[in-house]
Amino acid sequence: MTLSIDEARLTRELDALATYSAAPAPAVTRVVFTDADRQARGYLKALFGAAGLAVREDAVGNTFARWVGRKPELAAVATGSHIDAIPNAGRYDGTVGVLGGLEAIRALQDAGCHPARSLELLLFTAEEPTRFGIGCLGSRLLSGQLDAAAGDRLIDEAGLTLNQARFNAGFTGDLATVGLPADCYSAFVELHIEQGPLLERRGIGLGVVTAIAAPASLRVTIEGEGGHAGAVLMPDRHDAFLAGADLSLAVEAAARSSGSIDTVGTTGICRVFPGAVNSVPSRCDLEIDVRDIDLARRDAVLGRVGDACRAIAARRGVQITSVLINADAPAQCAPTVVDALAACCDAVARPHDRMISRAYHDSLFMSRVAPTAMLFIPCRAGVSHRPDEFAAAEDIATGVRVLALTLARLAS
Amino acid sequence: MTLSIDEARLTRELDALATYSAAPAPAVTRVVFTDADRQARGYLKALFGAAGLAVREDAVGNTFARWVGRKPELAAVATGSHIDAIPNAGRYDGTVGVLGGLEAIRALQDAGCHPARSLELLLFTAEEPTRFGIGCLGSRLLSGQLDAAAGDRLIDEAGLTLNQARFNAGFTGDLATVGLPADCYSAFVELHIEQGPLLERRGIGLGVVTAIAAPASLRVTIEGEGGHAGAVLMPDRHDAFLAGADLSLAVEAAARSSGSIDTVGTTGICRVFPGAVNSVPSRCDLEIDVRDIDLARRDAVLGRVGDACRAIAARRGVQITSVLINADAPAQCAPTVVDALAACCDAVARPHDRMISRAYHDSLFMSRVAPTAMLFIPCRAGVSHRPDEFAAAEDIATGVRVLALTLARLAS
Repeated sequence: MTLSIDEARLTRELDALATYSAAPAPAVTRVVFTDADRQARGYLKALFGAAGLAVREDAVGNTFARWVGRKPELAAVATGSHIDAIPNAGRYDGTVGVLGGLEAIRALQDAGCHPARSLELLLFTAEEPTRFGIGCLGSRLLSGQLDAAAGDRLIDEAGLTLNQARFNAGFTGDLATVGLPADCYSAFVELHIEQGPLLERRGIGLGVVTAIAAPASLRVTIEGEGGHAGAVLMPDRHDAFLAGADLSLAVEAAARSSGSIDTVGTTGICRVFPGAVNSVPSRCDLEIDVRDIDLARRDAVLGRVGDACRAIAARRGVQITSVLINADAPAQCAPTVVDALAACCDAVARPHDRMISRAYHDSLFMSRVAPTAMLFIPCRAGVSHRPDEFAAAEDIATGVRVLALTLARLAS
Repeated sequence: MTLSIDEARLTRELDALATYSAAPAPAVTRVVFTDADRQARGYLKALFGAAGLAVREDAVGNTFARWVGRKPELAAVATGSHIDAIPNAGRYDGTVGVLGGLEAIRALQDAGCHPARSLELLLFTAEEPTRFGIGCLGSRLLSGQLDAAAGDRLIDEAGLTLNQARFNAGFTGDLATVGLPADCYSAFVELHIEQGPLLERRGIGLGVVTAIAAPASLRVTIEGEGGHAGAVLMPDRHDAFLAGADLSLAVEAAARSSGSIDTVGTTGICRVFPGAVNSVPSRCDLEIDVRDIDLARRDAVLGRVGDACRAIAARRGVQITSVLINADAPAQCAPTVVDALAACCDAVARPHDRMISRAYHDSLFMSRVAPTAMLFIPCRAGVSHRPDEFAAAEDIATGVRVLALTLARLAS
């Protein structure tokens, strides 16, 4: 099949989408249910309509644009991603999967390929945790990993509930209707920039994702005993920050000794109180992120971190409280979808690597309800979530070409 | 000699002095050259005058109230402390040494004791670093440890130079005239609350200070490499915070293994950037305080901290920059003054401990120009620099009694 990908049109559409932003160019800020998000949705729905797709929106704003197949009774093949952007981000994260998915469908249409299964393009609401503190809000609800009651309890920083915010944005249905029925899709494929440096470093243009890591996050509070940095003798100290230093090194050691290169552990937040050069720290707050593609291995690391908390608390005479604030399970991608992607990379004569996704994606949740895999393209220096995020138009076009072939293969 | 200490009057005067404050009671905020400071100085100068003392002020506001001795040609014996208070502090830090010194002189006058040497009560300007970022401003200048040119360069947060601020407060002389001539005082004694828990814990009402520790402060900046907490593999990391954790533990180890209980090392400030749970820290700023009463031992600890910086930078592939922002030398107190204080404790039949001062005082600088020692009295739970700072009136009176006897002995 000869496919024509309109690289110039796709670039133009990505640039146009980037103008729906609360921050000046080149930065993109597009928080869910803000004006920028609503206007961007309007722009995209117009494009979907122009491509002859039937558009449906659910109660949380997930948007479904369907090209009805020759056999509409069959489960559809789906693709898609998100368009929300954290404050001061770039223009490619998520959007490449939405506009690239649209371009893939248009290329199939133009090539006269009409698959048996319907193709459905999804725009997921709020993949970023910016507003409601929880990532992948739309796909969590779609996949039943977040129920409507828990969704109802979400509140943004201004005190608005999810319900108030979505009602204001015009999404007024019942959250309980968002969950997808079983076997709704026969496959889901997400095109996305890598958000890491590996493809660029290796000079490989395509990555077929075989597993998606998922983080567990811990919020740790250490209560020690403060005092004057001159007056409290070393043996009398219960320094909360030194306990935090011990713990952060224990997190590193636990991740490094897991037995797999895929285990990572990070202490990204450390706050010290009272925070004066001549005061012994009385309290230290840490936030810790542990990720793996293997749930048992990740949980073993969490177990070692818990052991370290207890040992450090006892040795230093401090109180350590640790709360698990998030612990989604990682996902293995579906071999059928992975193999289809790999075969289509070969079909366009482009080398690919099999790799894992170390970042979070809507695919993590879609994998609970459909055979799922992802296709990565390089982004410059692995930079993402910054205004200088960049993916080359030809790399995007290559990704779209492979995506289109894969959708056609899975839908035939 | 029978001395009558007017405990009620002294309490009343301490309470009155506490009313000159920019913060509501019980907190005291009295920053140098503010209205509260100027009004408090006026109140005290009136008391000094009422006691028949000759008052002189120097160009930075250090105030000298002299009871002329029988042999005015002899070097005077001096006592005193400071009255400035950091924001939201208490009413006893410093003030006990000023009003207590006044009460000691009045008690000697009332007892008909007129020493050969003059007694001089000093009120030092800005012992606290609040406004100009440098502690013991007045006594540093008096002792020649800060020269006029360096003093001229000091600027407060509002951008006012020390010269502008002191001119506005009415102190218009030349800073170069502040330094004391050699042999100006035959001895200096400072009465002060302990600001630590040891006297209260031991049930001992008096502490004779034999040495004053001094801090060296380091400001450390660690530059690593940031990245996504999911995407950057553990062997590829250059985590600035983990380098900071290593360094803070190295500071602790260096202080603990110095060979003396008097060595303390503290990392009181740690700031992590960008400070997100899912970001590898790219930068970490630390502030480190190392104190000892022995200069060589303290500097040996600083040397070990420097070695640790180099080793950690090499091992983790990060850049560590360390700037020494302060490094005053500690002081040994003068045995003659220490022994005089100890003898006078015995004379009033009160037990005392010999101890070191782990906090900074004007005595640290006065020790450069005169034989110096300090007398500590307990404060409740060792609390200082807080509104609930408290010293019992009878403990203060006991301190004043010993101070008066010591001044008389040194001045006879």
